[in-house]
Amino acid sequence: MKPVRLGICGLGTVGYGSFTVLKNNADEIFRRTGREVAVTRIGTRQLKEHQDVGGVNVSNDVMAVASDPDVDIVLELMGGTGPARELVLAAIDHGKHVVTANKALIALHGNEIFAAAAQKNVIVAYEAAVAGGIPIIKSIREGLAANRIEWLAGIINGTGNFILTEMAEKGREFSDVLKQAQELGYAEADPTFDVEGIDAAHKLTILASIAFGIPLQFDKAYTEGISNITIEDIRYARELGYRIKHLGIARRSEAGIELRVHPTLIAEDNLIANVNGVMNAVMVQGDAVGPTLSCGAGAGAMPTASAVVADVVDIVRLMDSPACAVPNLGFQADSLADVAVLPISDITSAYYLRVLAHDKAGVLSDITEILGDFNINIEAVIQKEPRVHDAEHILSVIILTDEIRESVMMDAIARIEELAAVGGKVARIRMDKLD
Amino acid sequence: MKPVRLGICGLGTVGYGSFTVLKNNADEIFRRTGREVAVTRIGTRQLKEHQDVGGVNVSNDVMAVASDPDVDIVLELMGGTGPARELVLAAIDHGKHVVTANKALIALHGNEIFAAAAQKNVIVAYEAAVAGGIPIIKSIREGLAANRIEWLAGIINGTGNFILTEMAEKGREFSDVLKQAQELGYAEADPTFDVEGIDAAHKLTILASIAFGIPLQFDKAYTEGISNITIEDIRYARELGYRIKHLGIARRSEAGIELRVHPTLIAEDNLIANVNGVMNAVMVQGDAVGPTLSCGAGAGAMPTASAVVADVVDIVRLMDSPACAVPNLGFQADSLADVAVLPISDITSAYYLRVLAHDKAGVLSDITEILGDFNINIEAVIQKEPRVHDAEHILSVIILTDEIRESVMMDAIARIEELAAVGGKVARIRMDKLD
Repeated sequence: MKPVRLGICGLGTVGYGSFTVLKNNADEIFRRTGREVAVTRIGTRQLKEHQDVGGVNVSNDVMAVASDPDVDIVLELMGGTGPARELVLAAIDHGKHVVTANKALIALHGNEIFAAAAQKNVIVAYEAAVAGGIPIIKSIREGLAANRIEWLAGIINGTGNFILTEMAEKGREFSDVLKQAQELGYAEADPTFDVEGIDAAHKLTILASIAFGIPLQFDKAYTEGISNITIEDIRYARELGYRIKHLGIARRSEAGIELRVHPTLIAEDNLIANVNGVMNAVMVQGDAVGPTLSCGAGAGAMPTASAVVADVVDIVRLMDSPACAVPNLGFQADSLADVAVLPISDITSAYYLRVLAHDKAGVLSDITEILGDFNINIEAVIQKEPRVHDAEHILSVIILTDEIRESVMMDAIARIEELAAVGGKVARIRMDKLD
Repeated sequence: MKPVRLGICGLGTVGYGSFTVLKNNADEIFRRTGREVAVTRIGTRQLKEHQDVGGVNVSNDVMAVASDPDVDIVLELMGGTGPARELVLAAIDHGKHVVTANKALIALHGNEIFAAAAQKNVIVAYEAAVAGGIPIIKSIREGLAANRIEWLAGIINGTGNFILTEMAEKGREFSDVLKQAQELGYAEADPTFDVEGIDAAHKLTILASIAFGIPLQFDKAYTEGISNITIEDIRYARELGYRIKHLGIARRSEAGIELRVHPTLIAEDNLIANVNGVMNAVMVQGDAVGPTLSCGAGAGAMPTASAVVADVVDIVRLMDSPACAVPNLGFQADSLADVAVLPISDITSAYYLRVLAHDKAGVLSDITEILGDFNINIEAVIQKEPRVHDAEHILSVIILTDEIRESVMMDAIARIEELAAVGGKVARIRMDKLD
């Protein structure tokens, strides 16, 4: 049989990693597929010094790869959304199958790309877009296909998890760890995508669509970062038996779909609370299987390449009968459900509150009275020894509440912040039992 | 399109669970496959009182299901190896696709069954045979297809993990917990398969074959149970920062394949050390992806049904082009490697030793001298306060060693047991860094 011919567009970390895996494991891949898989063309600005691609045709014209008749599968590994979208649509238009590792591209333009692919009867695969080397797309779309998925929750940004882990284990400040993460190359010079949860929201958008069979709708995802998490919050949470993780959560509720990325308190005996450093992890709750957890490297050249090349292997098997491929979002395109994504004010959650208050008689009872007025049940309270701050005695009051609608909690917090004894903003972190 | 017609053979826990999942999630499955999936026939001794199968044709002749022209996919959910083998071979012979949850059947007769299926161009799927609802077969065969798998290690028997967890958390004796597990229905009346590691060895055999691309060879697996693990061992291990888990380990080494089930000390900060109760978990180390971990329910009606029905969904997609299906063991049948499985005496491992010795001067130095004679490095030693036993002072000496070939360790242990001050057998548990 003829070799399957790959065109790699973008020879950065992931692109060269994928080239390397294809080369190093060519024998193993041949044993699996029974067909030779060869990189015949590379589009990249220019080769870096350490990059050795043998005799492969390299040019800086990525669009030429998309139209090259000697390419069967285009690997879009450039990142970004503008040129990547054009490239992928052009490749599809030329009848090429596509593998991409680009979460932003899929989250923002996936609906358009999948429609184009269906028209041309080609496969678009994107396992590497979420959680790097963990085959979570495959697990949800295929491995758990018997289930009605009820919810999923993931640590899907390694940089954020690294920062929270360092803060927790070494008592270091957010800004200090962020700087180190940048030096280590985990975080970009502009860390917004990572620490503000945008990257995680891209991935969560994809996971929610394949879990529930809904169109991709990144614009509806709620996103809250970790830059306001303090070492105190991490310590108090730990005292109460919890860890703080930056989670992406997607859940079906009666009222609609919850789609949200934010710091979250999780009980310390939950396995996912113990996934540390740059590791990623995704919990999925299906009605038949119950809770499952998948962990692994969420980023990096080789783990991401692992997912890219697994997609290539899938396509090699299916390219002669692309109609047999799993639908892009795991559900038939005409079966996607039109279920509303809830605004964050309509979700229900338990909460951790930290209130700084002047050490005056009655402040704790004032706070609990307000919570009572809003029918918010209190699960635990810690009042910390007053400390002297600018010659004033300042109390920290930590409260864990029962589940309540977010809009009600926000109203209650506004009332607490109006108390004369309360200075400044109430810190509020959502909690989740993940059950 | 015509519905896809299923024949269920065996309506026990897993069979009725699968029937239930197919019924409850029929809408969701239709949204995924675009085809109706209907159970048209059931072969079972007799329906139990609580079982409601609607108008489906039920008979006690399972072999008739295998030849029924109105059945496209046969679900072998009877268990056992004799009649199950005949049924599966008959179904294949009649051109039916097969789904089975039967680990013993695949471990013992998989090579024969897969050869027959290849002849008839039908699909045999067996995701439910290993780790219940965790889609670990799919993850290894497809999700990690880009990798050269280096090793895997799994908690793949829920009963054994339940027993060890109860012993560790509540300080209960093995026999006491086993009795409870039997009452809870976790363990069979004859618990040998679970506690002696045979069930785990069936599953490990399958995992090793799909990880390394080798034929199934259950007879080469080394199996050691948990019935000799004492509460003392669990406590001493914990003092040293370890947990004891009953692991199935498959590893490629220079000399060959390691294939072994036995109690194992694992560092407590490894996630898999914290997988407790009846949960299953499998770690897989691929050369590109690094370490990954998958956890979930390893048994039970609904989790196992989740895997059975996921296989049905896969087959529904692929049945018109069965050549596109993943090869049975993940590798082309003609590419399976003929690599020797190492005898246990040839493996290399670190060890935990517990020596009971009379409290005589020099006993510790005698022991360490013997280890030194065999070039066995000592990583840690605890000598426990002597306790009085039959009017004698008995020491417990706990030693953690560096890695050494098992045959050397056994020789050293024999020498230690010959010491006059040492009473009885040395307890020996393997340790693994899982790296």
